[in-house]
Amino acid sequence: MDCEFCDGDGGPVLWRDGFCRIVRAPSQDYAGFCRVILNRHAREMTDLAPAERARLMDAVFACESALRELFDPDKINLASLGNLVPHLHWHVIPRFADDRHFPQPIWAKAGRPSSPSRPRVETRRLHDAIVQALAEEQGGTAG
Amino acid sequence: MDCEFCDGDGGPVLWRDGFCRIVRAPSQDYAGFCRVILNRHAREMTDLAPAERARLMDAVFACESALRELFDPDKINLASLGNLVPHLHWHVIPRFADDRHFPQPIWAKAGRPSSPSRPRVETRRLHDAIVQALAEEQGGTAG
Repeated sequence: MDCEFCDGDGGPVLWRDGFCRIVRAPSQDYAGFCRVILNRHAREMTDLAPAERARLMDAVFACESALRELFDPDKINLASLGNLVPHLHWHVIPRFADDRHFPQPIWAKAGRPSSPSRPRVETRRLHDAIVQALAEEQGGTAG
Repeated sequence: MDCEFCDGDGGPVLWRDGFCRIVRAPSQDYAGFCRVILNRHAREMTDLAPAERARLMDAVFACESALRELFDPDKINLASLGNLVPHLHWHVIPRFADDRHFPQPIWAKAGRPSSPSRPRVETRRLHDAIVQALAEEQGGTAG
């Protein structure tokens, strides 16, 4: 099977376990853009058992928490599309009112030539914030 | 507060409980397009307690199951964006290889003038399929 998320990580890995991984999505306009990718090949969320869906969403929400903490965005966008790569993955995108497409989705026609540049957040800080958010979820604390 | 999902249902209601509702999204090109909308006003998934996140996602996945059963789409797209209406809601969209935007997201530039028309699925059948999918989730059966 020819699948880019089976053949490779899909980007620089920020965190991983035996079930899924969180990678940086290379993007000029969306510096904090991450993807949460299931390790094995599956197509739809409802192809997973309920406990697996929950586990993947926990990683998505931990990623959201980390990005909110480090980037303080105006909005978080979450999406699982997979029309081009039908291997379960979630886009987790910090959005800002002055970014290239806001308030449209990042896939729409751009309203500005580019997003303003923002301070780079180091991989180590992102990794640590994700680990911390996962630990808090597993402790059952409210968001 | 001026919020269209606080002021109204957001579309014809297919199913609801005290926590959230599932509505049809009026769409010429995407007949099975539904939205899962939190009843109360909250902005991000991580503004909810973990148990509430799970409850909202259970409704999203029940909607996905129902749409897969009734429409047999090539792909399901899930997205929580909220840039324009920052009140938690999920888009659940059956996609077909010959639809107006495929394989692009529905927010991208259209590749075709319109989607082929598909048989209309009655509200009652959608309601029943959602109720059935929720019951199966609560029974803990795998997807």
